[in-house]
Amino acid sequence: MTIPAKAILKEVGPRDGLQNEQALVSTEKKVAWIEKLTDAGLNYIEVSSFVSPKWIPALADADDVFRYLKRKDGVTYAALVPNAKGLERALRADVDEIGVFVSASDTHNRRNVNKSTEETLTVLNDVAREAKSAGKTVRGYVSTVFGCPYEGRVSIGQVEKTAHALLDMGIDELSLGDTIGVANPLQVKQVIRQLKTTIPTGRLALHFHNTRGLACANIMAGLEQNIQVFDGANGGLGGCPYAKGATGNVATEDVQYMMESIGVDTGVSLKGLVKAAEYIEPHVGTKLPSYQLQLQQEEEDGA
Amino acid sequence: MTIPAKAILKEVGPRDGLQNEQALVSTEKKVAWIEKLTDAGLNYIEVSSFVSPKWIPALADADDVFRYLKRKDGVTYAALVPNAKGLERALRADVDEIGVFVSASDTHNRRNVNKSTEETLTVLNDVAREAKSAGKTVRGYVSTVFGCPYEGRVSIGQVEKTAHALLDMGIDELSLGDTIGVANPLQVKQVIRQLKTTIPTGRLALHFHNTRGLACANIMAGLEQNIQVFDGANGGLGGCPYAKGATGNVATEDVQYMMESIGVDTGVSLKGLVKAAEYIEPHVGTKLPSYQLQLQQEEEDGA
Repeated sequence: MTIPAKAILKEVGPRDGLQNEQALVSTEKKVAWIEKLTDAGLNYIEVSSFVSPKWIPALADADDVFRYLKRKDGVTYAALVPNAKGLERALRADVDEIGVFVSASDTHNRRNVNKSTEETLTVLNDVAREAKSAGKTVRGYVSTVFGCPYEGRVSIGQVEKTAHALLDMGIDELSLGDTIGVANPLQVKQVIRQLKTTIPTGRLALHFHNTRGLACANIMAGLEQNIQVFDGANGGLGGCPYAKGATGNVATEDVQYMMESIGVDTGVSLKGLVKAAEYIEPHVGTKLPSYQLQLQQEEEDGA
Repeated sequence: MTIPAKAILKEVGPRDGLQNEQALVSTEKKVAWIEKLTDAGLNYIEVSSFVSPKWIPALADADDVFRYLKRKDGVTYAALVPNAKGLERALRADVDEIGVFVSASDTHNRRNVNKSTEETLTVLNDVAREAKSAGKTVRGYVSTVFGCPYEGRVSIGQVEKTAHALLDMGIDELSLGDTIGVANPLQVKQVIRQLKTTIPTGRLALHFHNTRGLACANIMAGLEQNIQVFDGANGGLGGCPYAKGATGNVATEDVQYMMESIGVDTGVSLKGLVKAAEYIEPHVGTKLPSYQLQLQQEEEDGA
């Protein structure tokens, strides 16, 4: 069982993290935080989401965050977009990469965006085409890949169908999301093993929540299937407001710790990630579930 | 990569858990808790430690816990013993299995029991011989297998030497402890792969702390190396008072959740374990780090 020598960590905290926290973090603090994240060596930041402010007040300042951000060379500043209107704002903000999303399970998709997956795919088709013709790369998030809060286990066939629908639109990378944190390592291997038969692993990323303590075990399973791109949220921020108990994305720094300890090079500084988490925690106002942050705080307390 | 169809969870919460908590739980409550743990289907409980009450006040009532325990058929009620005096008490209490412990790293052993590993092995040799001649099985805990807070990385050779010293005394099973929670899945595979060359996997168990969020990934690695016995502490209780940040054994119920989701039969009820954790948490008086407990509490709160 070999694992890749290198991996890429994609930071979704400013979007997927803050989207699911109660606190409204100011634009200024978001910008300062994102700078700390890229200082740590992350070269992919999902900055915000161009959805209606009515839906997600925490991300209402997406345009401003992009306006005030001092961009660094070599960093991709991405944003999520639900529809044509969102894309228009995203293109005006000159985001580097457009993220679109659809659930593998129809019921979750309906509850999330009030459309069937088919209807959403039609919308995304237009978004992806326009984004590509504007010279942008596009990332597709597939939600509920490993389980749906309404439908339970989702079949691999359904995931495969959704994945191919997105790839057929010209979408560059798919992030397979364990939206409610129910994935297990055997399932991760099974799903990837099947998808690999028709999709190059280089186009697949994994997005785990640590709701049941299995995120790192699942990432390890992904590495063993030669997946090299993993999403994380600094501090372990976020979750899913529609899914009970879906507490938080896996903390990017906890993933980084594992990568370092198993000798997988990500180019990211663990110390830098912990610093960024220390910065954002008081502004979010809740104790964040990051192991590395907690260890750092205990050290500072002399515990 | 196949994994075993069955595994055994050994519950160390009443000893390794409570030993490292501030709270003094009453004998009556310990007994009630242990009954809930066996009600959940656990058939191995490390009940207490026969050490000097000066050292570990939380376990000063070891004799009484055994006295008041209503034993169930098929359950092994074990206790830790540091020396001949402890063994005498343990035999008087008629414990089913004797646990002894030594660190793989000399410095940790000296800080822990004020003896070199060689000196400790001499003591344990007598304890093991006497225990065996009293008809008891003996479990050997090897601490700091995956890292020492003073010496850093511990060589596999050192672990192997310690393991064989214990097996040569007639000790039945070795529990390889990640005392400070620094093990990673690749290392677990490497260590087991090496030990397997001279020790049957049936005589090895793994004991992880979830300090850095990798316990389940490490257990998965152990399963993939055909290890079938894993220690856990209900609620994720405990830690190591000599090691900064060593927050808690992996929660037995979190391990059970993983085992169920990957189809490994342990004969234990997840619900029963969560009930036991719900019972003990208020008596310990701190928020316990168990994912499954938290999910249950959120459900009850209607969160």
